[in-house]
Amino acid sequence: MVQQETQSRLSVMNFLSEAALDYPHAISFASGRPAQQFFDLDGWLGEIPRYRDHVVRQQRSNADTVGGLLAQYGRAAGIVNELVAEQIGADHGVPCSGEQVIVMNGCQEALALCLQALCPQPGDVALARNPTYIGATGAADCAGIPLVPIGEDDGDDFPAALARTIGSELAQGRQPRALYLIPEFDNPTGVVLSESDRLATLALCERYRIAILEDNPYGMFRFEGKAPPALAALDEYGVVLHLGTYSKTICPAVRVGFAVVPDTLFGSAAASRALKTELGERRSYVTVNTSQINQAMVGGILLREGGSLQRFIEPSRTFYHRNRDALLSALETHLGPVRDRVTWNRPEGGFFLSLRLPFAFMRDDMLTCASEYGVLTMPMTFFSLDGTQRESVRLSFSNVSQDEIGRGVAAFASYVRQRLQP
Amino acid sequence: MVQQETQSRLSVMNFLSEAALDYPHAISFASGRPAQQFFDLDGWLGEIPRYRDHVVRQQRSNADTVGGLLAQYGRAAGIVNELVAEQIGADHGVPCSGEQVIVMNGCQEALALCLQALCPQPGDVALARNPTYIGATGAADCAGIPLVPIGEDDGDDFPAALARTIGSELAQGRQPRALYLIPEFDNPTGVVLSESDRLATLALCERYRIAILEDNPYGMFRFEGKAPPALAALDEYGVVLHLGTYSKTICPAVRVGFAVVPDTLFGSAAASRALKTELGERRSYVTVNTSQINQAMVGGILLREGGSLQRFIEPSRTFYHRNRDALLSALETHLGPVRDRVTWNRPEGGFFLSLRLPFAFMRDDMLTCASEYGVLTMPMTFFSLDGTQRESVRLSFSNVSQDEIGRGVAAFASYVRQRLQP
Repeated sequence: MVQQETQSRLSVMNFLSEAALDYPHAISFASGRPAQQFFDLDGWLGEIPRYRDHVVRQQRSNADTVGGLLAQYGRAAGIVNELVAEQIGADHGVPCSGEQVIVMNGCQEALALCLQALCPQPGDVALARNPTYIGATGAADCAGIPLVPIGEDDGDDFPAALARTIGSELAQGRQPRALYLIPEFDNPTGVVLSESDRLATLALCERYRIAILEDNPYGMFRFEGKAPPALAALDEYGVVLHLGTYSKTICPAVRVGFAVVPDTLFGSAAASRALKTELGERRSYVTVNTSQINQAMVGGILLREGGSLQRFIEPSRTFYHRNRDALLSALETHLGPVRDRVTWNRPEGGFFLSLRLPFAFMRDDMLTCASEYGVLTMPMTFFSLDGTQRESVRLSFSNVSQDEIGRGVAAFASYVRQRLQP
Repeated sequence: MVQQETQSRLSVMNFLSEAALDYPHAISFASGRPAQQFFDLDGWLGEIPRYRDHVVRQQRSNADTVGGLLAQYGRAAGIVNELVAEQIGADHGVPCSGEQVIVMNGCQEALALCLQALCPQPGDVALARNPTYIGATGAADCAGIPLVPIGEDDGDDFPAALARTIGSELAQGRQPRALYLIPEFDNPTGVVLSESDRLATLALCERYRIAILEDNPYGMFRFEGKAPPALAALDEYGVVLHLGTYSKTICPAVRVGFAVVPDTLFGSAAASRALKTELGERRSYVTVNTSQINQAMVGGILLREGGSLQRFIEPSRTFYHRNRDALLSALETHLGPVRDRVTWNRPEGGFFLSLRLPFAFMRDDMLTCASEYGVLTMPMTFFSLDGTQRESVRLSFSNVSQDEIGRGVAAFASYVRQRLQP
């Protein structure tokens, strides 16, 4: 079994599920699930024949043969790679070919296997912002890879904090090999990494030969402003592995994600080929391949949509946008009067907003707030790599109604005002 | 990247795929794929609503809500656990509850995560027969867990060889934690572990607290004779984790497998709960969960079939049986005259037969045989943990036609007779 420290991290997810079960009537800003009113599973399953017919035409085969092959074992790297590459190019401005794509069981598998492949030696470490996505923490823990927080608390900008963290790791004899980032609408904070910070990050990572795992689950859900180019689009060096998923754009149960390996890894085409081979082999020995049924569903949708999911996600993007506005408005109404002590950001997209309190909000506070005020929020410290972030909260607005947002924020504000009383 | 020795093992699968591509017209006894003429993907996808309606009735919910939840993130341990437990009980005589089942992305994920959970410490090792399934070798390699071959070559029976191997590992300061076994129609050899050997194995594993990973992909494909009870059915101690998959009974692309954790692991209910929790958490950080779409397809089929897949697999079982007979008959015809030097077993079920030659048959021999004789077979040494098994060959009869079996064996026999010439 895993060691004690790991165990406690691993158990956060369980604790959250249980909290949701224990307080079924609490309004929940805890879940980062996509809104399921936009799911059309029956319709999407109906797109599988569209993909099959596409392959029949491509291979000049017949529907029975291709249908049989779809149900068989398939390529470890996937079968809808060209369609995925086209979509990433169209929707994220990341130019790539199907050859660079490895289809995975959601982005989680891509992340877990990239960390394992990039950090094989004792002393190899991965870096991440602090707080960070709990799936990155868990994947690193399971593989025994230290995930080092980038110390941004001293007021430095991100590249300066990154440089300091790299220097400190090297000085202690550890070798940073990978940097995990969600540059667009970070989970859990909702923040966007600026273009200048992206360029500086790329330069640092090239210099120290650190691969960037650019995770982009929320990039298509921008409500306002102009998106900075993706790190992979700015990458001239071959340091970025662009990761993605159809869990938010289509639905989580599709379990289709991907990694895009640069043509030349740190300038070397051979290193890039070796990494692709290794990722393909590692995934062979964890999950064999991503179900071709699920890939065919994604492929059929991508074919129907002409290669871009912009139109497809517009209803959910609009819903998240309105929810973000409702959340900002409710926060202003209920906590505006104490804005000198309670602050929050204005996420330009994505699923999450972060809020800072003048007091610690931990596990027990979360439970009190759920039981006494009927509202579930996520203590930011759950996402912390070092036990900090005790005074922040993540509010997810992706899986609540506007009505719930109004009532939930009012309830949370009551809790906060009570805590603020001297 | 992984070390050199590991790399070479990991590359066997790639080599095989490439060999198949390089000799597309060779008759192949190399692939252990199920026969795809029995796949009915369109029909099976049509069973998803049956499962959905079952949940609607169970939860007194409505179809839209349940449909939405099917497309969402779901329980890490799975949703069709009760139906899976019912089928394992009916078809394999393994009594278990849904609570004991963890649904995985194929048996491969179950195997990989069980090995990781059971062998966390340096010095922990797993044991396996030699030769063994390449997915076990690969999963252990990827996790850095030594997979120790059980030395059966000295003529001992299996339990004696197992006892000797355990003793030798302990004497060298290593701790055997897991034993990987395919007791029914082993891949690659096709052999069955006898009931008395099963009982002796259970007693040894209880004594040394070694968990048995009982992998049972082929158990339903028995052609003759009576099946010994599954290890999990004989297990009074709580040492057996029963693993399985729907890849062979339904189709590989369904990517649904499972692990059944005993109620008391080594006699402890707490140890069993801890292992289930850890497996659930590890899988959260590798693949999140098994697609509920795929689970719903399996669930719908199990509901339609009334809990047992016996009737469902009868056409493919009959096909494999006839193929086994055709293979035995062709071997007798073409290699019977040299049976003093070339021997083979008579598998009572499953997909594989093993054949022993009086000369080494290695990678280059396989390529020569493919290019000059038009027939692909698997050198058994590919499945070896220690470079032995050089004079054996695995012949798979699951994915060839009877006509191909006749022509393929004739061609292979020509190759063998040419090698036998002085």
